[in-house]
Amino acid sequence: MNSFSGTGYDLWLQYNKISNQEIKTTYVKNFTGMYILGTSPTLKIAGDELKRAYKGFFEKQLNETNDFNENILFLSVRENLPKEISASLQENFNKINSEGFIIKKIKYKNQNFTVITGKTDVGILYGTFRYLREMQQHNDISNLHIVDFPKIQKRLLNHWDNLDRTVERGYAGFSIWDWFLLPELIKPEYIDYARANASIGINGTVLTNVNANSLVITPHYIEKVKALADVFRPYGIQVYLTARFSAPIESGDLKTADPLDPEVRNWWKNRINEIYKEIPDFGGFLVKANSEGQPGPNNYGRTHVDGANMLADAVAPHHGIVMWRAFVYSEHDPEDRAKQAYSEFVPFDGQFRDNVLIQVKNGPIDFQPREPFHPMFGAMPNTSLMMEFQITQEYLGFSSHLVFLPKLFEETLDQDTYVQGENSTVAKIIEGALSNKKLTGIAGVANIGTAKNWTGHPFGQANWYGFGRLAWDPSIDSKTIAEEWLKLTFTNKEEFVEPMTNLLLQSREAVVNYMTPLGLHHIMNSGHHYGPGPWVDNLGRPEWNPVYYHKADSIGVGFDRTASGSNALSQYAKPIEKKYSSLGTVPEKYLLWFHHVPWDYKLKNGKTLWYNLAFKYQEGVEEVEEMVTTWDKMERFVDKERFFKVQMLLKIQLKEAKWWRDACLLYFQQFSQMELPKFIPEPEYSLEHYKSLEFPYAPGTRPSWN
Amino acid sequence: MNSFSGTGYDLWLQYNKISNQEIKTTYVKNFTGMYILGTSPTLKIAGDELKRAYKGFFEKQLNETNDFNENILFLSVRENLPKEISASLQENFNKINSEGFIIKKIKYKNQNFTVITGKTDVGILYGTFRYLREMQQHNDISNLHIVDFPKIQKRLLNHWDNLDRTVERGYAGFSIWDWFLLPELIKPEYIDYARANASIGINGTVLTNVNANSLVITPHYIEKVKALADVFRPYGIQVYLTARFSAPIESGDLKTADPLDPEVRNWWKNRINEIYKEIPDFGGFLVKANSEGQPGPNNYGRTHVDGANMLADAVAPHHGIVMWRAFVYSEHDPEDRAKQAYSEFVPFDGQFRDNVLIQVKNGPIDFQPREPFHPMFGAMPNTSLMMEFQITQEYLGFSSHLVFLPKLFEETLDQDTYVQGENSTVAKIIEGALSNKKLTGIAGVANIGTAKNWTGHPFGQANWYGFGRLAWDPSIDSKTIAEEWLKLTFTNKEEFVEPMTNLLLQSREAVVNYMTPLGLHHIMNSGHHYGPGPWVDNLGRPEWNPVYYHKADSIGVGFDRTASGSNALSQYAKPIEKKYSSLGTVPEKYLLWFHHVPWDYKLKNGKTLWYNLAFKYQEGVEEVEEMVTTWDKMERFVDKERFFKVQMLLKIQLKEAKWWRDACLLYFQQFSQMELPKFIPEPEYSLEHYKSLEFPYAPGTRPSWN
Repeated sequence: MNSFSGTGYDLWLQYNKISNQEIKTTYVKNFTGMYILGTSPTLKIAGDELKRAYKGFFEKQLNETNDFNENILFLSVRENLPKEISASLQENFNKINSEGFIIKKIKYKNQNFTVITGKTDVGILYGTFRYLREMQQHNDISNLHIVDFPKIQKRLLNHWDNLDRTVERGYAGFSIWDWFLLPELIKPEYIDYARANASIGINGTVLTNVNANSLVITPHYIEKVKALADVFRPYGIQVYLTARFSAPIESGDLKTADPLDPEVRNWWKNRINEIYKEIPDFGGFLVKANSEGQPGPNNYGRTHVDGANMLADAVAPHHGIVMWRAFVYSEHDPEDRAKQAYSEFVPFDGQFRDNVLIQVKNGPIDFQPREPFHPMFGAMPNTSLMMEFQITQEYLGFSSHLVFLPKLFEETLDQDTYVQGENSTVAKIIEGALSNKKLTGIAGVANIGTAKNWTGHPFGQANWYGFGRLAWDPSIDSKTIAEEWLKLTFTNKEEFVEPMTNLLLQSREAVVNYMTPLGLHHIMNSGHHYGPGPWVDNLGRPEWNPVYYHKADSIGVGFDRTASGSNALSQYAKPIEKKYSSLGTVPEKYLLWFHHVPWDYKLKNGKTLWYNLAFKYQEGVEEVEEMVTTWDKMERFVDKERFFKVQMLLKIQLKEAKWWRDACLLYFQQFSQMELPKFIPEPEYSLEHYKSLEFPYAPGTRPSWN
Repeated sequence: MNSFSGTGYDLWLQYNKISNQEIKTTYVKNFTGMYILGTSPTLKIAGDELKRAYKGFFEKQLNETNDFNENILFLSVRENLPKEISASLQENFNKINSEGFIIKKIKYKNQNFTVITGKTDVGILYGTFRYLREMQQHNDISNLHIVDFPKIQKRLLNHWDNLDRTVERGYAGFSIWDWFLLPELIKPEYIDYARANASIGINGTVLTNVNANSLVITPHYIEKVKALADVFRPYGIQVYLTARFSAPIESGDLKTADPLDPEVRNWWKNRINEIYKEIPDFGGFLVKANSEGQPGPNNYGRTHVDGANMLADAVAPHHGIVMWRAFVYSEHDPEDRAKQAYSEFVPFDGQFRDNVLIQVKNGPIDFQPREPFHPMFGAMPNTSLMMEFQITQEYLGFSSHLVFLPKLFEETLDQDTYVQGENSTVAKIIEGALSNKKLTGIAGVANIGTAKNWTGHPFGQANWYGFGRLAWDPSIDSKTIAEEWLKLTFTNKEEFVEPMTNLLLQSREAVVNYMTPLGLHHIMNSGHHYGPGPWVDNLGRPEWNPVYYHKADSIGVGFDRTASGSNALSQYAKPIEKKYSSLGTVPEKYLLWFHHVPWDYKLKNGKTLWYNLAFKYQEGVEEVEEMVTTWDKMERFVDKERFFKVQMLLKIQLKEAKWWRDACLLYFQQFSQMELPKFIPEPEYSLEHYKSLEFPYAPGTRPSWN
């Protein structure tokens, strides 16, 4: 392409020419050819990727060979390895699971060369991408010894994609699934999507929205799903669908969807058998039931256990799984919304089938810029709990704000729940280390769309990448991920990587500061969730209103979740409950999440809450200003398209950060009746102006037709 | 990009490396540098395009100079030309209008070089693209003498794009206008869209759907429209919007939108003045009024003249125009729908303001695969009529069928209306040659979307290109356009261009044959217009039902529009009326458009209508089979992405051609009660099956939310 759109399509798989002569010479010396033992589609894909990368790095073809020559790269699955090699790697093999890999410089038949092996072809594919990543980062490849494997079994993207190609909470255009032209038209994007996911170890994708459409499990659509499954299979990726609980009524002809009704059970069994006839490795279902208006077993006086187990029984003969979402809350329940999922699910611990995973959002409300971890983590030792992160930035500035989410993910994963004593981290729980169940999983709600660079914001790619890396290994730290991604996506130059790593790592705290500092949450505007809306108090359900969450009054602000309030803290282990219950010891970042705090209460710095609130909002704005300044200095390292795009988007982010600051402070000032500190600039508009703003076509919502 | 998506983004502006050494040598000799006299943004764009192309063709930088050196390319507007040059080109200048250009090898100060000049900078930009097109086609550039100018003044794309980014009748993804991120985010696509349009001479774009939303003329959106206008301006492209007639009520606070109400007139005047404050060269409005539920002057007992002139008066001080669509028909009017626009508008001839264009679809129904020309053409000599073609393939297979539309456009443009004697072609009418009005225009309903190649089907680009070329000069023949486009878009190789030109030229007749042969029309399925639906008879308005149009019964099929029927033929000039009225002389391609013909009526070939109908359907299918075969042979000339994509799409086209054939023949057989000729294969399914098919999420319609 000679025009300047399209940069960014290649994500972190850019394989740019290596122009440093020293590195190039060493690499070419250490990578003289490729010997692939085996002919599976997956190994062919690994070989093609190596060839593609080799051509990109060195602008020449990679030699293919069938001999053990000096310094070749040798790919073979364990069972085909020459016995001598296999034996020498025994210890390494003991460490990995079926998806793991070994990359090792070995000597065999007097030749030194690098082997990539594993127990399965997909393990080798993962190893191949890892090998390439080493080169992309200009690391030494002359004497590699890497043994790695994924710590979590089901590593999934969740697409909230509708059959009409709109994407709920999607900000990167529309759905990449072109259902209308499937199964015939296989877009190159499907293949590159699979490559990208395989390169970071994602092994499953839920194609459809959790607010589900029963049509997708009809034969007309299953034919289309099968076409995608066929594309993804050799990349180690299984497809999953969302099941609409009322499907037996809507797309069958039953009068009920009662999960204990034999006809209903039979209907699902037959439907599911039909699916598996077409897609033998179909992954299973993700279900949002009795949540936000979705149908579910409660409609028939049955429990979540009844519903989940019914589906689980139907997919079990095919080794399918059911991911049942714990995201439930009821407008009829006066209990604090933050408590409801726990109250509903914890009593069922131990009653779900072995092939059921309960999918729990990272926090107890809904993907806010910052939440404490969900109290269900650790509270159901006899149930498989999987993590649901949101990669799409529903509450974090859509696709126009630069926010590096691995920092958020890491914060949750590293959190100590104390449920089995110290060091009972959330990560350990979802890795299954503290549970009696052996099925493990993690899901990320995708930020992928038809945007030419997949994610809209060029830095949205980092969140897809980072989710994948943490799903593979929750212990990787976010700084490593930031550096890796920056190098793969832009350049290895230190003058770029170092300041940009700092920028990424700071970006999540910035958004917390300019949107919801000090534990504030859910104060965005309604419906589209775009911009501030702390004043909203007129929605149909109490717990949909921001005022429900901040409870600002003349005395103070914040949600009392201690024993004197909703007592949501009682859902956490004792050490947390105790620490967070006291105003003196609760981390200030969670202050207003757990406490209703007087405006003039003095925080650790000796200043009032009001002062600190203003300070945090201002700090958030200034952090974005710093991002703008830093990015402006990066022009020489970045292609024009991405440079200007990020520059324009940062302008939006800065404008909106100020909007959040001004709207929220003006609003809360009505209650605090205190003056704004001098460091806060005069707000550009009045509170009335901010309250009057309307955005009928904000993306990510179902259009209200004109 | 090293992965294989994105090919096609560059449209016909690919500037591929010229590897033929002889051509390259001659070109480099004849194009030694560039001298641009002037610094306007438009001239800078011309220079940038030359540099970009030079680098593509020759893989080196184009020299820039400020001297008249041998064999340079010299760009200057007439008023800046050295007097001697200007004088020598006087005769050429006399031939062109303000948008025309001259490309000529001249001698000046003893140096031979090529000049590109015109009366305006935009003329030079058009000349630049023309010069590059010569090179792209490997034509001789050593002694150029080209004088060219557009024959029609307003050459517009109409985008039926909604503010929520859905596109009515759009099949290439979603709207390229990312309203939400405007005005801050200027996507590279906006610039490349402008380049592409300027390269074929399109000078205006209506950004929004004719089913209009009054929000777009509010300040919040005008700020966004202004950002696009600022991008497009230096490319010679004006922006236009659609006006919703009821806007004074919806986005103002008036109680009426009566065009004769002084308050209403004032409201529009003020609103329009506000728009021009932001966008001084705003083009004006396209209006769909009192059509298919849209509000209009009739709601207030006023006429189309009242409505159009009211808006025309408001934009006139700013040199704006109003394009008022003639696409009106009423369910309360028992008159043949084909007659209604004529009956409604012709009596108003001479009453519209000078800055009003009446925008008339090419045929009297609605963008069918084939229609006779609209009888309004020629019937309003004292009114400016503009042509509305549809580039998006609403009724021609969406973006999955390969149909080369310039063949259709040409058929209409070349048609003789006889209104002022022989050779009163439709082209002459829209060029203004037969009218007393001097404002001329042509519009194409765009097939552009977020698809990475803009149009979804790689060959959809040919229809955008071809529309632009014919808008520039309606006399260019479709074969020339096909050859040009193929060379620019794929390769100059004769073994590719020749068979593919034949394929393109045949493709339109193929779709007529497999969908609506022999003058059949409007027998598609309802709502989404996807696939056959001749049986549909239950829609709310009589003239929405296919049965209204084909009138099949036990005697025959077809719509009697002669004097014995609706007498729509009386709206045409006498020679046409006479010729088309007789079964013996009516062109068979219009047979069932104008006549109800007995099933056993013998056509010119001596076979029955029934036989011929079957023959045509089968011929259409076989023509697609031939397209499949031809394309398969083109693999060596085409990049992988486009080759496989077209191959997959042709499979869809063939499947659907058979579907049309089988469903229509089975349906009509119920009436003819005649056996299918032996050359028709056994239909794959029963008529009941075809009737039962549903496609709730077919593209191009407003989604019906689940």
